[in-house]
Amino acid sequence: MKQEFKQYFKELLGNDNACFDVLHQRVYSYDATKKHYFPDGVLFPRNENDIVQILRFCNENHIIVVPRGAGTGFSGGALAVNGGIVLSFEKHMNKILEIDLENLVAVVEPGVINFNLQEEAQKHGLFYPPDPASMHFCSLGGNVSENAGGMRAVKYGTTKDYVMALRAVLPNGEVIRAGKRTIKDVAGYNLVGTLIASEGTLAVLSEITLKLLPLPKFNKTAIALFDDIKQAIDSVCKALSKGLNPVCIEFLDLLTIEALKQKFKLSYLTANTALIIEMDDNEEENLLKNINYMRDFFLQMGAKDFKIANNEKEASDIWFARRNCSQAVTIYGSLKLNEDITVPRSKLAELLEGIRKISLKYNFKIPCFGHIGDGNVHVNVMLEKNDSYQIEQGYKAIEEIFKLAIELDGTLSGEHGIGISKAAFMQLAFSEAEMNLMRNIKKAFDPNNILNPFKMGI
Amino acid sequence: MKQEFKQYFKELLGNDNACFDVLHQRVYSYDATKKHYFPDGVLFPRNENDIVQILRFCNENHIIVVPRGAGTGFSGGALAVNGGIVLSFEKHMNKILEIDLENLVAVVEPGVINFNLQEEAQKHGLFYPPDPASMHFCSLGGNVSENAGGMRAVKYGTTKDYVMALRAVLPNGEVIRAGKRTIKDVAGYNLVGTLIASEGTLAVLSEITLKLLPLPKFNKTAIALFDDIKQAIDSVCKALSKGLNPVCIEFLDLLTIEALKQKFKLSYLTANTALIIEMDDNEEENLLKNINYMRDFFLQMGAKDFKIANNEKEASDIWFARRNCSQAVTIYGSLKLNEDITVPRSKLAELLEGIRKISLKYNFKIPCFGHIGDGNVHVNVMLEKNDSYQIEQGYKAIEEIFKLAIELDGTLSGEHGIGISKAAFMQLAFSEAEMNLMRNIKKAFDPNNILNPFKMGI
Repeated sequence: MKQEFKQYFKELLGNDNACFDVLHQRVYSYDATKKHYFPDGVLFPRNENDIVQILRFCNENHIIVVPRGAGTGFSGGALAVNGGIVLSFEKHMNKILEIDLENLVAVVEPGVINFNLQEEAQKHGLFYPPDPASMHFCSLGGNVSENAGGMRAVKYGTTKDYVMALRAVLPNGEVIRAGKRTIKDVAGYNLVGTLIASEGTLAVLSEITLKLLPLPKFNKTAIALFDDIKQAIDSVCKALSKGLNPVCIEFLDLLTIEALKQKFKLSYLTANTALIIEMDDNEEENLLKNINYMRDFFLQMGAKDFKIANNEKEASDIWFARRNCSQAVTIYGSLKLNEDITVPRSKLAELLEGIRKISLKYNFKIPCFGHIGDGNVHVNVMLEKNDSYQIEQGYKAIEEIFKLAIELDGTLSGEHGIGISKAAFMQLAFSEAEMNLMRNIKKAFDPNNILNPFKMGI
Repeated sequence: MKQEFKQYFKELLGNDNACFDVLHQRVYSYDATKKHYFPDGVLFPRNENDIVQILRFCNENHIIVVPRGAGTGFSGGALAVNGGIVLSFEKHMNKILEIDLENLVAVVEPGVINFNLQEEAQKHGLFYPPDPASMHFCSLGGNVSENAGGMRAVKYGTTKDYVMALRAVLPNGEVIRAGKRTIKDVAGYNLVGTLIASEGTLAVLSEITLKLLPLPKFNKTAIALFDDIKQAIDSVCKALSKGLNPVCIEFLDLLTIEALKQKFKLSYLTANTALIIEMDDNEEENLLKNINYMRDFFLQMGAKDFKIANNEKEASDIWFARRNCSQAVTIYGSLKLNEDITVPRSKLAELLEGIRKISLKYNFKIPCFGHIGDGNVHVNVMLEKNDSYQIEQGYKAIEEIFKLAIELDGTLSGEHGIGISKAAFMQLAFSEAEMNLMRNIKKAFDPNNILNPFKMGI
C-alpha cells in the first residue's frame, strides 16, 4: 500500500487505530476457516464518521475494504483475500447504545459481542434469541452480515427476524438509514432485508437496531433416544405440526454418538440417534404439560427413552453432548471439512441416507449432527490432514453432498454463508440469471467493487 | 398501443386473455384510492411461461407493465398511471398449489385471495396469520408486494415474516428463484427480502412459498375502557414488556368512539378510549389465566372497565366496533384522507397529541384508530368532497402529520405502501443518498424501467 494512503489513515484515525505492522496483519489475517490472507493494514474506526471518511477515501483510490466482526466465520467473509484494508469494530464500535424497555428494542454498534447483548437484555428481563455456536465471541455486525442462526431458530428464527433497522455507510461514504423501530414499515424498498446476509459486500454497518422479546420464565431440557433415525425425524415433523413449539431440537447421529461415548464416556447415549430438546414457557405448569406431552408422543412414535432433566445439572449434562459434538468427531480424523447444508425438514432422512452412501463410496467417516427442527445439518467429512489425495477426494465428496442438498430443495448454507469457502459451488445452486442479478445488486451499491470483493462468487 | 403489439398478445394468450376493450380498461383502471388511470390493455397470464413471454416482449418494445393483484391497495401500486399493460393474476394464476403438512408450508400462485389460503390452511389445522383488513378480497401477490400487515401483527408479524421463497420473472423475461422451503438459508443475497414490499417495481411474482403455523386452539376477545388515552398506551407498552402476548391490541380514540355510538348505537363504549384485545393459546386454562392477568393489570393501571367476551356472540359484538370504525367516521365528512403512519409504540401518545393540535389548527376532525400494539395508526382527516379549498388544506394537514411521524422516528406507511399516494412525501423520510440507492436497485432489476414505473418516487 502506498505510503501516502497509510499516512492519510494515520492522520485520520491516529497511529493506534491505523496499523500496518506485520503483527496486526497476521492477527487479522484469519478466521474460523483457518485460511490466512494478510491485509495491507487494519483500521479501527471510532465512530460512523470515521467509516464515512475511510470509505470515501478508499472508494476514490480504489482501495479494497473488508469489514470484520470477530473473525469467527466459517466461510471466509472477513478475509482480505486480495489485500486491502481490514475494518475492525472490536476496539471502539462495541457499545450497546440503548435498551429501549418500552418498545423492546436494543440499539448496538456492530462490534458488540452477541452474548454481551444477551446478558444485558437478560438484566432487564428481556431476551435476544439468536444464538450461533460462537455467540460468546462473535459480533452482532457479523451476525447481521451472515444472517447467523443457532439452535433456537426452530422456535425463534434467525438474526434476520430481529433486525428492525440499520445505519450503514455506502462505499461512496454516504450514510443510509434503513428500517424503523416499528413492527410495520413499508416505505421504500426493504433495504434492511437487502443488507442482511450480504456478507459485508454492499455497505458497512454502523448501527444495528434489534428486536428483543420478554424473557421466558421457565425452561426444560430433555433427551430422546431412538434406534431409527427416520423415526426420530418423523416424530419431530409430526410434533411440530401438532403445535408443539420447542426452543431447540437437535440431533446426533450414530457416528457422533459413538465419538462422544469414546471421547467423553457419556453412558446415557444408549441408542443410534439422540434428540436434545429444550422447551420454554412463562408458566411452569404449562411447560411441564407440554414436555410431558412431547415425551408421551415420542415414546408412542417409537422412542426407546425420553429423559427430562430434573435440575440444571442434569440439563447441563445433556447439553454437554451437543456442545462437544464438534470436538468429539475429531477422533475420526485430523482434518474436518465442515459444512452446514439445510433441507426442508421432511427431506432430512433422504439427505442423511444420501450422505451415508457418499460416505461408503469414498470410504470417509461423515458424522452428522445439528438442528433437526429446521433441517440444518452440520456435515463433517473426516480426513487426515497430511494426505493430499484424501483431501482432494474429500472436496469431491463435499461437492456431491452439496448437489444432493440442492436436489432435495435445500441450500448450500443454512448459517455460515458463502464467502470464499462455497463461492465455487454457487453455480450449483443459482442460475446464470440469478448470479447476474446479484452482480447487478452489488454494482448498485458498490460500483467500484471496493467492498469485500471476490466473495460469494459475485 | 400499436396494433402489432395487441396482435402479439392476442396470439400469445388468446383473445380472452388479452383484452384491449374499454370495459376491461375501465374495470382495471382503479383501486382503493378511487383514482382512475386507464391502461392500454389487460393481460391474464395463464402460467409463469406466459409472464416470461409478456415481459420479454414488453422489455424489447419498452411497453410499461403494471402487475395487479386484486386492486384493493390504498396507495395506487396497481394503477397504470402512464398507461401500458395491466397484468392480472386473478383469472388463472389463483391456485393454492400445495399445503405441505410436514414442513408447514404453502405454495401459492400470486392471485390467491388471502382468506382462501387462511381457510385452506385451517382445514389442515394450520394458520396463515397476516390479516390485512381487505383479506377477503386482496391477493397474496399484492400482500407480498406491499408487505401487508393486519391486526395480528403485534403477535405474529407481517407478510414478510411468512415469505420463505419466491419465483419471479425479471423484466427481461428471466426467471429467478429466491429463498428455500427452509427456516435457514444464507446462500447468496437475500433476494426474497429485496422483493418484499417492492410494490411490483422489480420483478413479477409467479409463485410464493409461505410459512404456516399450527392453528392455536383457543382464543378470547376482550374490551378495555380507559378515560385517558395516555394511560391506555402506557398499559399496553407495559403489558407487552411483561411478556403478555396478545394476538391483536387495537385502539379507538374518542372521535371514533363518538362516531360509532352515533352511527351504530354501541352502548358499551362508555369511555374516551377503547382497547380491543384478542389472545390465543393451545391451552384453554392458560388462555384464561393470561387474559385475566391482563384484565387485572389494566384495571390496576387505571382502566375503567375490562370485559371479557363469554362467547362468540359477545366477541363478535366487540369486534363489530373495530370493524366499523372506517364506516362510522364518515359522519364527520364526505371525504376521508386516510393514512397509516406508524411510530414506535412508546411515541404513540405524543403522535396522537400532535395530531390533536393539527386538528385544532386546521379545524378538521381527525379520528384515529388502529393497531396500538405496533404503533400503526389509521389517521382519518375528514373533509367535504366539494370544498376544494378544504381539500387543499387537508393535504397540508396530512403533510404535517407525516412530518410529525418522521420526527417521532416513525414511518410514512406501516401497511399501505407508497405507490403514487405518498410518492411526493418520500423526501420527508429519505435522504437523497437513500433515494439514489433505491433508484440504483430499481435499475439493477429493471434497466429499461418498464415495470410499474413512476411509483414510490423512485
